[in-house]
Amino acid sequence: MPDTWGHKLAEPLFERLTVIGCGLIGSSLLRVARRNNLARTLVAADISQAVCERVAELTLADEATCDLAGAVAGSDLVILCVPVGANENVARSIGQALAAGAIVSDVGSVKSAVMASLTPHMPAGTHLIPAHPVAGTEHSGPDAGFATLFLNRWCILTPPPGADEIAIKKLSDFWTAAGSNVEVMTSEHHDLVLAITSHVPHLIAYNIVGTAADLELVTQSEVIKFSAGGFRDFTRIAASDPTMWRDVFLNNKEAVLEILGRFTEDLSALQRMIRWGDGDGLFNLFTRTRNIRRSIIESGQETAAPDFGRHQSDPQ
Amino acid sequence: MPDTWGHKLAEPLFERLTVIGCGLIGSSLLRVARRNNLARTLVAADISQAVCERVAELTLADEATCDLAGAVAGSDLVILCVPVGANENVARSIGQALAAGAIVSDVGSVKSAVMASLTPHMPAGTHLIPAHPVAGTEHSGPDAGFATLFLNRWCILTPPPGADEIAIKKLSDFWTAAGSNVEVMTSEHHDLVLAITSHVPHLIAYNIVGTAADLELVTQSEVIKFSAGGFRDFTRIAASDPTMWRDVFLNNKEAVLEILGRFTEDLSALQRMIRWGDGDGLFNLFTRTRNIRRSIIESGQETAAPDFGRHQSDPQ
Repeated sequence: MPDTWGHKLAEPLFERLTVIGCGLIGSSLLRVARRNNLARTLVAADISQAVCERVAELTLADEATCDLAGAVAGSDLVILCVPVGANENVARSIGQALAAGAIVSDVGSVKSAVMASLTPHMPAGTHLIPAHPVAGTEHSGPDAGFATLFLNRWCILTPPPGADEIAIKKLSDFWTAAGSNVEVMTSEHHDLVLAITSHVPHLIAYNIVGTAADLELVTQSEVIKFSAGGFRDFTRIAASDPTMWRDVFLNNKEAVLEILGRFTEDLSALQRMIRWGDGDGLFNLFTRTRNIRRSIIESGQETAAPDFGRHQSDPQ
Repeated sequence: MPDTWGHKLAEPLFERLTVIGCGLIGSSLLRVARRNNLARTLVAADISQAVCERVAELTLADEATCDLAGAVAGSDLVILCVPVGANENVARSIGQALAAGAIVSDVGSVKSAVMASLTPHMPAGTHLIPAHPVAGTEHSGPDAGFATLFLNRWCILTPPPGADEIAIKKLSDFWTAAGSNVEVMTSEHHDLVLAITSHVPHLIAYNIVGTAADLELVTQSEVIKFSAGGFRDFTRIAASDPTMWRDVFLNNKEAVLEILGRFTEDLSALQRMIRWGDGDGLFNLFTRTRNIRRSIIESGQETAAPDFGRHQSDPQ
């Protein structure tokens, strides 16, 4: 793992960066853009007056405004950091105001649907390069962001066929300077990869927490007390932003249903092993899954500390 | 949350404690017993010569032996810390050697089956009080243990009907002095509570990691790279000890199948919401689940730090 946190640039890559939507991701982007000198001028835009005021208080940008069209005028990089379902309305608001040559990108967790909703609103001469930084926490809002959120995480670019190579390169340099590793793939492949690495895991986490909440024979207080047995691990991602995740599932339906089908098929097989007492079958699966965690730790995407390092704050 | 880590006793509660099985739990128990003066003499027993040698190197006990019957002779507290499926063989080995008045307990994650397998081997005059400290990490073996493992965690006692009140009280004091909160319930209720808070969560974690390993359209290396999208949270408990978990599922079949049935029923409903685009249904569930995490954090069973505190080690 690199021991620095991205690259502070001598000269900014962009003259004027507009970030639309200042939640966890947008505000983290503003923080790292300031810290690593990624753009000369930082503009924050959000439809919420309260968020704009908070961004101003935190001095995350040079300008903070509710006027989306005004915010993008003259910007050479515009990044939409809103829930996937809000992209189309934002694109409609800003389309005509975009400067010639501007790069327009986003941070959405699904890419084919985002591409389809943004493309019609992009004027000729602008460059739409969708992106997805695979990073986040369960917290939301401008106060939840931090400059190292993207450090050592992957950012996936899904440029449409025939996209401008220079624009792709500039956006790639931007994310690299923010501390990320960049990978390029098609939007279709992205959506399948993320269905297994992110969307279905969130779905089953939400689901088990919901199942636990609905039991009559075990009280809520018992679920809470004894959650250290494993349950609490699921509650983290089941505490993620509800609007964002509703939109992910509505916009990546096919890939999510495909992976979910495989998951339930495999779960039925496991259920059968339990019912029929197939200890060897259970043992074999449980051994195989250990190796994947080891690889994730070795790749720098996870901590090796027991319990995710939760015990760090305990007295020793 | 208490800011101490249990109670160092002026006088030990027991004269001679024998811990059988020196993995994560057994070795943590020896460590906290030494540190908090829970017993005057500590005896470690394990059927593995290598484990006994390691326990001796780490000086976790006053004696370390492969002779289980010899180890329990003269002990007033014997705690079995072996996989649930191994309890019966251990009980058979030690039954005749147990001292009159000895308390025999265990740390297994299922209780009705353990009770059934231990009871026939307990001589009259000994006190069988099964227990389950709801604590652990994904690591295994004598090196993985630590003295604060049980701190602020719950330990559930499941004494059989008519069990000696003084023995229950002594074992309860022991776990309290180890830093735990103690709760008493029936073995049947325990098995149901743990099915939802621990067993089924482990099962679906093992399952999703298995599903990811078997995809043809997404490579293993992609799963690893992009695991920060949520998947990696599941790999922690799916890296837990395979033998222990095989035995849990074989020995808590009814409760696990009952909870699993509810889980898949709920998941089918979610799947249907996605297929038919029921955004409100998804949003409602995703909002409800946030509150449970808040309660778990407030109860001291979880950290409030984003990402389980994984970011603590990042430069700020």
